[in-house]
Amino acid sequence: MRVVQNPAKLQTALARLKRQDKKIGFVPTMGYLHEGHLSLVRLARKENDVVVASIFVNPLQFGPREDFKRYPRDFPRDARLLKKEKADFLLAPAAEEFYPKDFQTEVKVTRLSGRLCGASRPAHFAGVCTVVLKLLNIVKPDRLYLGQKDYQQVQVIGQMIKDLGFSVMIRMAPIVREPDGLAMSSRNVLLSKKEREEAPCLHRALCEGARLVKRGVRDAGGLQKPMREILKRAASARVDYLEIVDVRTLRPVVKLKKGQKALLTGAVFFKKTRLIDNELVRV
Amino acid sequence: MRVVQNPAKLQTALARLKRQDKKIGFVPTMGYLHEGHLSLVRLARKENDVVVASIFVNPLQFGPREDFKRYPRDFPRDARLLKKEKADFLLAPAAEEFYPKDFQTEVKVTRLSGRLCGASRPAHFAGVCTVVLKLLNIVKPDRLYLGQKDYQQVQVIGQMIKDLGFSVMIRMAPIVREPDGLAMSSRNVLLSKKEREEAPCLHRALCEGARLVKRGVRDAGGLQKPMREILKRAASARVDYLEIVDVRTLRPVVKLKKGQKALLTGAVFFKKTRLIDNELVRV
Repeated sequence: MRVVQNPAKLQTALARLKRQDKKIGFVPTMGYLHEGHLSLVRLARKENDVVVASIFVNPLQFGPREDFKRYPRDFPRDARLLKKEKADFLLAPAAEEFYPKDFQTEVKVTRLSGRLCGASRPAHFAGVCTVVLKLLNIVKPDRLYLGQKDYQQVQVIGQMIKDLGFSVMIRMAPIVREPDGLAMSSRNVLLSKKEREEAPCLHRALCEGARLVKRGVRDAGGLQKPMREILKRAASARVDYLEIVDVRTLRPVVKLKKGQKALLTGAVFFKKTRLIDNELVRV
Repeated sequence: MRVVQNPAKLQTALARLKRQDKKIGFVPTMGYLHEGHLSLVRLARKENDVVVASIFVNPLQFGPREDFKRYPRDFPRDARLLKKEKADFLLAPAAEEFYPKDFQTEVKVTRLSGRLCGASRPAHFAGVCTVVLKLLNIVKPDRLYLGQKDYQQVQVIGQMIKDLGFSVMIRMAPIVREPDGLAMSSRNVLLSKKEREEAPCLHRALCEGARLVKRGVRDAGGLQKPMREILKRAASARVDYLEIVDVRTLRPVVKLKKGQKALLTGAVFFKKTRLIDNELVRV
């Protein structure tokens, strides 16, 4: 595996491979890798000739009062894990070069970015879109690997790719969980012992919602109430949102219709640490 | 010359040429072509193997009270002119396909877009950036041809290209003028006879500014006053702005320094029709 800091150098190496018609799979990450990330790398490895991963804690996607500084980092360990998964390139750009002083371009997907996580993190998805667009221009992958845990992110990036005519296919991989059901996240390490013990309640609440849908409950209120009950029992949990939304528009669904695909999705603060999770259901 | 409405079809044709390592020059336009546009096509023809022009009156870059509907159009004539200049492809997408109903992505260059024309046309450059980015993704040119008349547009697009890591070179061509000095513009046809007679005053004012710089005048006030005097004499003219700005940041220059490159630039309404022009000066 080749570790590259300079995007131009990566481009030169990839251009040569592209001329040989090699297919490129790309896994963008913010590092502090867990099994969720690694499952993306494995899928990319299976489906492409060349696998590029990136590690970049993108300052643009953190709000001024968010956890950019606290966000966990361990580059040597990440590099080791990616090498073990046989990634070919690891791009790790320096923030000052990626965003020089006169940087001033912003990419925004308006409607989708305002919902769910976007409602409590107003500049978040613009930051995500801007960094992903720039990374797509550098790597020019055939396939882009994203995790279902960040379902809204996948939808927002998908819309951007479609709207702006990028020719890359998105591959979304399932959520990877701890044995107790907690969705893997780099932020889990920020939880105190007590918070970590309570954190699986989010997954339990979403599973309860999915179970009720299977049992025939169709109205959002009837789903949300028992889900919220589960979260209430966790003392350190404070719900940011807990919603049933359309899988494409991410707009709240009031009553599920036969054949409809919906997403049960939630964001919960465990003290300062905000975790998200979701379950796809089909009525 | 091949006229293509469907971007995907153009991409297929261009991909084949790219594999043969042909260099592609791209001239994006809103049609109703004049000698200014044609000078760009000629330059592109000279410098590339393949020349792609596009005609698309981009609704996103017009404000709600601007002249999108009045904007002049003559597709058959445009196609004839481009063919004569030996363009290889003319892309003319349909607005409903280019911007389908769920289109919601916006690309913005923040600081540069707020100045000059951006101050009176708040969403204009976001519309320009969005359409140009999408066109760049379709055509993937080696060189992009833009006219100096829209100097701010060139700077904004250049910043976007740099910020987002596109690998295309911008080529800016000089302003082409009518015999009386009026900068060629598709909008000139919208002028009444009286307005058309008065319109060259903008170029005269900018030339007077440039002459004064050569004569040693260094402060913006001392340049603007005589320039405004010239514009005042035209009854149909109403100044939107008239400024001396830094060629890169587009920020107003109060006092020109030795060696400095500056832009004298103005926008003037002749009744409903807004025209722009500029002169580069070096102290």
